[in-house]
Amino acid sequence: MAQTQRLRHALICGTDLHILKGHVTTCQAGRILGHEGVGVVDQVGDDVTAFKAGDRVLISCISSCCGKCDFCRRGIYSHCRTGGWILGNKIDGTQAEYARTPHADTSLHHLPDGVDEEALVMLSDILPTGFECGVLNGKISPGSTVAIVGAGPVGLATLLTAQFYSPAEIILIDLDDRRLAIARQFGATQTVNSADGRAVEKVRALTGGEGVDAAVEAVGLPATFKLCTDIVSPGGGVANAGVHGVKVDLHLERLWSQNISITTRLVDTVSTPMLLRTVVSHRIEPKLSDYTPLQARRDHKRLRHVLARGGDRGLEGDHRDITQGGGQWCRRAEDFSRKST
Amino acid sequence: MAQTQRLRHALICGTDLHILKGHVTTCQAGRILGHEGVGVVDQVGDDVTAFKAGDRVLISCISSCCGKCDFCRRGIYSHCRTGGWILGNKIDGTQAEYARTPHADTSLHHLPDGVDEEALVMLSDILPTGFECGVLNGKISPGSTVAIVGAGPVGLATLLTAQFYSPAEIILIDLDDRRLAIARQFGATQTVNSADGRAVEKVRALTGGEGVDAAVEAVGLPATFKLCTDIVSPGGGVANAGVHGVKVDLHLERLWSQNISITTRLVDTVSTPMLLRTVVSHRIEPKLSDYTPLQARRDHKRLRHVLARGGDRGLEGDHRDITQGGGQWCRRAEDFSRKST
Repeated sequence: MAQTQRLRHALICGTDLHILKGHVTTCQAGRILGHEGVGVVDQVGDDVTAFKAGDRVLISCISSCCGKCDFCRRGIYSHCRTGGWILGNKIDGTQAEYARTPHADTSLHHLPDGVDEEALVMLSDILPTGFECGVLNGKISPGSTVAIVGAGPVGLATLLTAQFYSPAEIILIDLDDRRLAIARQFGATQTVNSADGRAVEKVRALTGGEGVDAAVEAVGLPATFKLCTDIVSPGGGVANAGVHGVKVDLHLERLWSQNISITTRLVDTVSTPMLLRTVVSHRIEPKLSDYTPLQARRDHKRLRHVLARGGDRGLEGDHRDITQGGGQWCRRAEDFSRKST
Repeated sequence: MAQTQRLRHALICGTDLHILKGHVTTCQAGRILGHEGVGVVDQVGDDVTAFKAGDRVLISCISSCCGKCDFCRRGIYSHCRTGGWILGNKIDGTQAEYARTPHADTSLHHLPDGVDEEALVMLSDILPTGFECGVLNGKISPGSTVAIVGAGPVGLATLLTAQFYSPAEIILIDLDDRRLAIARQFGATQTVNSADGRAVEKVRALTGGEGVDAAVEAVGLPATFKLCTDIVSPGGGVANAGVHGVKVDLHLERLWSQNISITTRLVDTVSTPMLLRTVVSHRIEPKLSDYTPLQARRDHKRLRHVLARGGDRGLEGDHRDITQGGGQWCRRAEDFSRKST
């Protein structure tokens, strides 16, 4: 039930950087990375019934869910027995001209007409991750106070989709003033630069000493996780959206009595159809093409190096590496070599 | 709105042992311990309307909730702005012949007739803690698989009340075979002695390699917390009921993608009226008088020492220490000196 798409847009995810750092042990050397993209169906397998050649499709990061196993039937597609997050991890991914998606009928999404594809590619991973791991798990609700630690792509996606539920305050916390300025444009009611190590104190000052109802971790470091547990108020929750490479300290000697929840989640993409509708209706405008992440230039060089490693090896079928490609945000596949910096 | 009760039964909680170890910084030296008990109303304050002298009452561990503040109005009584867990912590407690309960109208419960008081005193803390922190936070549901780490009082209370929701399997894990035998009498479908360090492997073998939907931590140690996070399956939850004295390691480098929740809670006693009804209807039989915990004898000696420290100081009103008292389970206040071992 597989199908092959010709890629039109692809993204590089923060998780790809974790692969570079060796944090994702399931990903073997030489793998073509990438689990996000928008493309056009090139070929379909015999059993595919929901898509045909020429269809424009969104490739979901949870790009292979069978729909039949116990996890899929509970909506936990990320832990599908024969799929889940395998694209650009256990099988070759979307940083190529062509990519193959197993379980296509239950894994791809038709693209709506009349919407910028650079906006839609955000729905491969970034927006559902921010929404499911941050907003849903954080139980963000009307009148609540929210802190989002990390104004990177997932933090901003959390910020955008948190506003569906009308929280009273959304405080964005980051080290970089330029990111925080973007966060304000995207709807943050308060911003905190945490570079001085006083973020806890500042958040408490902004919340009448109370802390927040929901703290979303969108970085993936021990310090940012601890910050979340330091600013969440009794009855609140820490929703982890970051990818972590090392253990963290959990201060249960204080937190055991604080009536909090901590959640983790590999995005299931159960919300992707809903999120597509919010983009079509212009409820959110997820295009972030003027955004450059903090470490983009450095990481970009590293990614180019890694992507290049697979360039000379023979690949099955029509797959080819785009060895010159890379960049944190949207690039047309055909423009990779020209636009790459 | 305070009232004074003459104690008929009191318990010593594992939390009192944490006080001895210096883990509860809000409790000052010389404090009369105890936050559990059954008594008879002796005097009532002018504003008390729900109770009168002579009423038999259950003293709740969350023995002082105003009912008016923001936390109380959200049902988070444990974090009441002027109360919460203060008895035997910030004010003198129930290891005495008389105890005083502020905010009596919203903190005490009338005792039903015809039920053994030694059973009812379990509702001061143990049963609601097991139920709220373990069963409710663990989202124990029909057909689910549950592991309870620690077959102490709270673990057994979790075991008893988990059965309200008809889980498919309840696995009790402890170091002590005698405790595990009691757990089987109380309804555990499987038991695991973890003394050999192979508990994870054993739980996986009992669950077809899957792990459990809910893992309840009812000990309060880093190793038992880690065990819970090692046996919970994707989509499941770790419900912490134990009181911790030190931080724990949280292995987010693996757990970030496992779609789990971790909850903490100081019991709110919101379930106490319901639990009283289950005892009255004999849905549960919480009397555990033949039960002796693992460290009871050693800790009992330490507690006797601490309780004795307050014996000679002058106490307000009619309060007097029971300096000879102690014992993990029910003792009539008037029998403390005679029965104490």
